[in-house]
Amino acid sequence: MRVLAKDIKDSNGQEITLSGWVHRIRDLGGVNFIILRDRSGLAQIVTNDELDLNVETVISATGMIHESEKAPGGYEMQLTKLDILAEASSDLPFPVNQDPENIGLEAILDNRMISLRNPKILSIFRLQADLIRYFADFLRSRDFTEIKTSKLVAGGTEGGSNLFEVDYFDTKVCLAQSPQQYKQTMVASGLERVFEIGQAYRAEKHDTPRHINEYVSLDIEMGYIETERDLMTLEAELMEYLFRKVRENNQADLDAWGGTTPDPDKCKNIPIIPHDQAKKIVSERLGRRVFEINPEAERVICDWAQEEHGIPMVFINAFPRKKRPFYTYPDGLKTMSFDLIFRGLEITTGGRRINEYKMMKETLPKFGMTEEELGDYISIFKYGCPPHGGFAIGLERLTQKILGLTNVKEASLFPRDRKRTGP
Amino acid sequence: MRVLAKDIKDSNGQEITLSGWVHRIRDLGGVNFIILRDRSGLAQIVTNDELDLNVETVISATGMIHESEKAPGGYEMQLTKLDILAEASSDLPFPVNQDPENIGLEAILDNRMISLRNPKILSIFRLQADLIRYFADFLRSRDFTEIKTSKLVAGGTEGGSNLFEVDYFDTKVCLAQSPQQYKQTMVASGLERVFEIGQAYRAEKHDTPRHINEYVSLDIEMGYIETERDLMTLEAELMEYLFRKVRENNQADLDAWGGTTPDPDKCKNIPIIPHDQAKKIVSERLGRRVFEINPEAERVICDWAQEEHGIPMVFINAFPRKKRPFYTYPDGLKTMSFDLIFRGLEITTGGRRINEYKMMKETLPKFGMTEEELGDYISIFKYGCPPHGGFAIGLERLTQKILGLTNVKEASLFPRDRKRTGP
Repeated sequence: MRVLAKDIKDSNGQEITLSGWVHRIRDLGGVNFIILRDRSGLAQIVTNDELDLNVETVISATGMIHESEKAPGGYEMQLTKLDILAEASSDLPFPVNQDPENIGLEAILDNRMISLRNPKILSIFRLQADLIRYFADFLRSRDFTEIKTSKLVAGGTEGGSNLFEVDYFDTKVCLAQSPQQYKQTMVASGLERVFEIGQAYRAEKHDTPRHINEYVSLDIEMGYIETERDLMTLEAELMEYLFRKVRENNQADLDAWGGTTPDPDKCKNIPIIPHDQAKKIVSERLGRRVFEINPEAERVICDWAQEEHGIPMVFINAFPRKKRPFYTYPDGLKTMSFDLIFRGLEITTGGRRINEYKMMKETLPKFGMTEEELGDYISIFKYGCPPHGGFAIGLERLTQKILGLTNVKEASLFPRDRKRTGP
Repeated sequence: MRVLAKDIKDSNGQEITLSGWVHRIRDLGGVNFIILRDRSGLAQIVTNDELDLNVETVISATGMIHESEKAPGGYEMQLTKLDILAEASSDLPFPVNQDPENIGLEAILDNRMISLRNPKILSIFRLQADLIRYFADFLRSRDFTEIKTSKLVAGGTEGGSNLFEVDYFDTKVCLAQSPQQYKQTMVASGLERVFEIGQAYRAEKHDTPRHINEYVSLDIEMGYIETERDLMTLEAELMEYLFRKVRENNQADLDAWGGTTPDPDKCKNIPIIPHDQAKKIVSERLGRRVFEINPEAERVICDWAQEEHGIPMVFINAFPRKKRPFYTYPDGLKTMSFDLIFRGLEITTGGRRINEYKMMKETLPKFGMTEEELGDYISIFKYGCPPHGGFAIGLERLTQKILGLTNVKEASLFPRDRKRTGP
């Protein structure tokens, strides 16, 4: 019977079978070792026979488990039978069993089908899988319903640019930049509280460590709020939950990268700084005046938050009207909107949305838009839409910042950028 | 403080606030009733004042809760204060508070932003949200890891046709028909057991009650299997779990449509019928020879299974080589592949995949393909890939068949078909 590497200690003195990849071979003059890798970890197999195996070959190894001081975990297998399930060629294009720290990002991504076997690289996606789960679990506990909405849409939610066009039978559609209209529709449908975990597409020509053209958006929309403060409270509680669960369950993934989470208990201290004041804080720290919260300013304000509030996160709210999409709820000359900056990177944009039909109709001309352009979207306001708002978290950016990855592309299994369309 | 409609019984004798949509107005000559709808259900509000409210207007109503024999749930609110949160226009394009059974599908979908407010229609998506959760919970309990893979790919997995093309900067990519190559890569990466919940795209010109061009695919891939029987066992256990959970938690959604699940205990009896024999069974029942398992045959074989095995589901396996994609593991003249038919509709296709590099290289020319065409995909076989296989379940079809919906489009929030690109 197959036993997982992590469980061999429970089979001490018994004959079992391990199945997995040959992670490493060691020849200590007459005594040979196979380090086998399976989904649970590594196990050591010892034999006196000569071994003619390439690393990454898939094997089933049968033998007796015994204690061994020198083996990882304190137990090893004395090999009695070796089956080759699939041979690996000897010209492995990427070192699976070494720390990839000195390998450039391009080489990692060019060899993606193999570089994902590297345990350190794979740990990024073990953590990411859990982040998705924690996100959904938290929201379900708050009575949110999961939705799946179309990614093929007529136009953009955030304006007409930065859209990828799709040939759709005899017409053209676009890849959705966000599920914005749909998540609002589902709030207005009566679900009130919805979330979606899905791809989003931005045809931006940026090539920076913080941009990818296809990403996983963790979207939230919530009815019966009063201001964006209700949303920031929710997000702070979500972050507290995420960080707590990561600390509970993902220490090995953190350790692989030297990653850490902020102190979950400090999430209730995340400062809320109006946009104007944020610029002032950054200007003071830099000793020169800044006019917008650019990437440098995002780093500075998080350093400030760490020093002043013990957490490297800042909500910036009260953005001016012209910096936000037309559907953002106004608040005098400002808006009920916010960003969340985490370790120098914006991971969330959100806010209250306009929900009143009259206000929407008055707003559109100010943005050079017409009711007709909005198509069916306008009808959710015409027929009774509660006060609501929401936000979205970029999954890859969140993963990146927890683990301390240099580039957001490292946190996407198969990233797409301006030049990269495969593998 | 806001209380949900379902909880007003706990506030008997207290003044509370309800917020929601005006579902219905009743005027009983001097006594007026508002039936308010929120995410939890309906509540009755009574007042002697004249009401000038359109249905779907969003209100907050404050008043004392008292017992009332005639009220739904046995309690109602005596109104003291009414706030209008958002007015609804009086020309509602779709009846939210009536059973939509006599409304045609086109009208339901043309007015999608409003028809989703209909509680019966919305219940489809409450169930669907839970199906997603049950699916993920079951797989996590079996040590599967969730993945999110790119939907922008160089070519098709199932052959070159039926692909939507995307303008991607200066080049073209296609929308993924399935995460096939990526889920196999993640098995080979060492995760061994993976699942993905994501959109899949088929540019098929079909316009039938069983086809949509964008659907949510519940994908599974699993390493260290021997034959497709391991996969069918897993899927039968998954179905048993899903049906059990639906019965436990979704009775209201089932009742809205008169839907049912098969008996969960009978899932271990799902017959496994080789493709040849399935044709024979259908031919005998129809009294004429059938040459393929077409939609009619799928209905007939499920009727047969219900009569013979007490469950309206059949696994059909041992498909001939030419009926399956090139990557399907051969088994003599047949393949280690299967479909799952549920109430007359194929909801799953799956099978063991070729995992040996040598076999893959020998197979490609038989399908008129070359190693170069496979691009990076071939490398997972070249460098050690364990025996593995998987399957996918169409979420909308599964939802459709549990609720007994006539058309799969009813089970998609914003369906896309050959002509429908919105809302």
